[in-house]
Amino acid sequence: MNLSEIIQPIKKELLEFEKTFKKEMLSKVKLLNIIAHYILKQKGKRIRPTLVLLSAKLVGDINETTYHAAALVELLHTATLIHDDVVDESNMRRGFPSINAIWGNKVAVLIGDFFLAQGLLLSLKHKEYKFLHITSEAVKRMSEGELLEIQSSRGNDFDEETYFRIISDKTASLISACCELGAASASEDDFIIEKLKFFGENLGIAFQLRDDLLDYLGDSAITGKPTGADIKEGKITLPLIYALKNSPRKESRHVMKIIKNNPTNKDIYYVIDFVKNYGGIDYTLKIAEEYLDKAKQFIIDFAESPAKESLLKLTDFVLERVS
Amino acid sequence: MNLSEIIQPIKKELLEFEKTFKKEMLSKVKLLNIIAHYILKQKGKRIRPTLVLLSAKLVGDINETTYHAAALVELLHTATLIHDDVVDESNMRRGFPSINAIWGNKVAVLIGDFFLAQGLLLSLKHKEYKFLHITSEAVKRMSEGELLEIQSSRGNDFDEETYFRIISDKTASLISACCELGAASASEDDFIIEKLKFFGENLGIAFQLRDDLLDYLGDSAITGKPTGADIKEGKITLPLIYALKNSPRKESRHVMKIIKNNPTNKDIYYVIDFVKNYGGIDYTLKIAEEYLDKAKQFIIDFAESPAKESLLKLTDFVLERVS
Repeated sequence: MNLSEIIQPIKKELLEFEKTFKKEMLSKVKLLNIIAHYILKQKGKRIRPTLVLLSAKLVGDINETTYHAAALVELLHTATLIHDDVVDESNMRRGFPSINAIWGNKVAVLIGDFFLAQGLLLSLKHKEYKFLHITSEAVKRMSEGELLEIQSSRGNDFDEETYFRIISDKTASLISACCELGAASASEDDFIIEKLKFFGENLGIAFQLRDDLLDYLGDSAITGKPTGADIKEGKITLPLIYALKNSPRKESRHVMKIIKNNPTNKDIYYVIDFVKNYGGIDYTLKIAEEYLDKAKQFIIDFAESPAKESLLKLTDFVLERVS
Repeated sequence: MNLSEIIQPIKKELLEFEKTFKKEMLSKVKLLNIIAHYILKQKGKRIRPTLVLLSAKLVGDINETTYHAAALVELLHTATLIHDDVVDESNMRRGFPSINAIWGNKVAVLIGDFFLAQGLLLSLKHKEYKFLHITSEAVKRMSEGELLEIQSSRGNDFDEETYFRIISDKTASLISACCELGAASASEDDFIIEKLKFFGENLGIAFQLRDDLLDYLGDSAITGKPTGADIKEGKITLPLIYALKNSPRKESRHVMKIIKNNPTNKDIYYVIDFVKNYGGIDYTLKIAEEYLDKAKQFIIDFAESPAKESLLKLTDFVLERVS
């Protein structure tokens, strides 16, 4: 995704955000500051703060509280990544050794906890309780969504309804929260805040559909080859759910057996072909486009502005590298 | 510690707390509920809710918000234990297989995150922002304290001042928060709330001094043999800090060398004897008693009541099994 165009209307504000963010990461403990500087050096894409800032700008003026909201979500996001690397035993992140690889698991978990606490305290200090409510609700949904996904992948009960509940909770919740936070920081109008919340929810679902599609199609910007990582992990996503439902019973049973029995690379390509042949890709693409259209509808009535253009561009980018 | 006497004045209220706590642990996700029931089955000692309830009862009446505060700290504590087991790769907890041992690291981390979010949402829902502030501050201090401890154990800069900063942040912060939360739930008087906060702070420091002493003395209720676990991990605690400072330079250097070079069991007994000979035990005991006396001073002016008696008894219990 080409972010430089999208961040154009909030370029100055993103720099301001960095200041707030950095300040919240620092502490009186030296070791903590060394690690904070290490993290700040490998700057992430700042997609979540970008959504916060653009949403605020769309509905009003970016202000002090907008930066707090952006720092809150980025602190949460940073903590989540650090904790994820511990759980997944990853040694690399963004091309650098991960925190756990350098400082060990214990330090990594503690740093994550510290960032979470700092995010909470930032909002509490400024009495931004609404931000806390939006963010905690998202954290709750994220953990529930991931747990539901694990539960489903261990059982045999996947259907479209469960799938959409999972991706809505595990992915769309935080993207939706970013847009809602930004709007809530710049507007008092609940109707307007809701619009941005739903914009984010639909955008987030499309994001996850895109990710799930790329597992079958490969990302043209990287290798163009499908990775089949979800199939390997036993994750049943929409392309496969659709193909399973729309194929002869004998074939779908065969595919299920393959997935449940540590599939080899050959097996994975078999499953990918199966999904393509029974329309799983086309169907998922169609649904993703529908969600993007729906997302756009929630912001279409706002007056034309650079922020609006950027948010619309963002929705166009989602499926850019797919197909 | 014999808790049954101490909880006498709040026995009914602890049962009421269990209801609130259980309700907050449940969710619409089946897997989550299975795990929640598993956790509830191996009931912990509920020391933190006990402190919340006794503190509330000391200063006023236990009410609905007291249960929320107690549930908030116990959710936080439960999440911390689950995450700790992941970091330490522990397979057992309270005599049962740990969550990570049964359901894997990913699920364990997610469950912990869910409990944290539920705690936050419980306070947010009831607009108990003060509780959130107290608790987030404690979480921040806990992570800072543990990070400072790791930083110090890697370097050579331990002195009493750093040691007390570490144990105050990593241990006393949460105990202090429990007492402050309880008081804040039952009183509007900032002066009274502060008293309970300081009571908890001093009690918490004494608790940690006791733990650090037991590493050299052994817990008479268990084996009576010192474990030397801190020495093995390179943790320099007060008994050792004192002995190092009050021994001839040649001897203290020798001991430091031993500690820094993966000490054997024989080495550890040598260090334990060194600490005893140079008065590290007696000094630490004396300091612990001073903190307990200080703790008592903060509640001594309250009218006699079963809650007060219990809190005083609790301070007496701290050093009961030591020496």
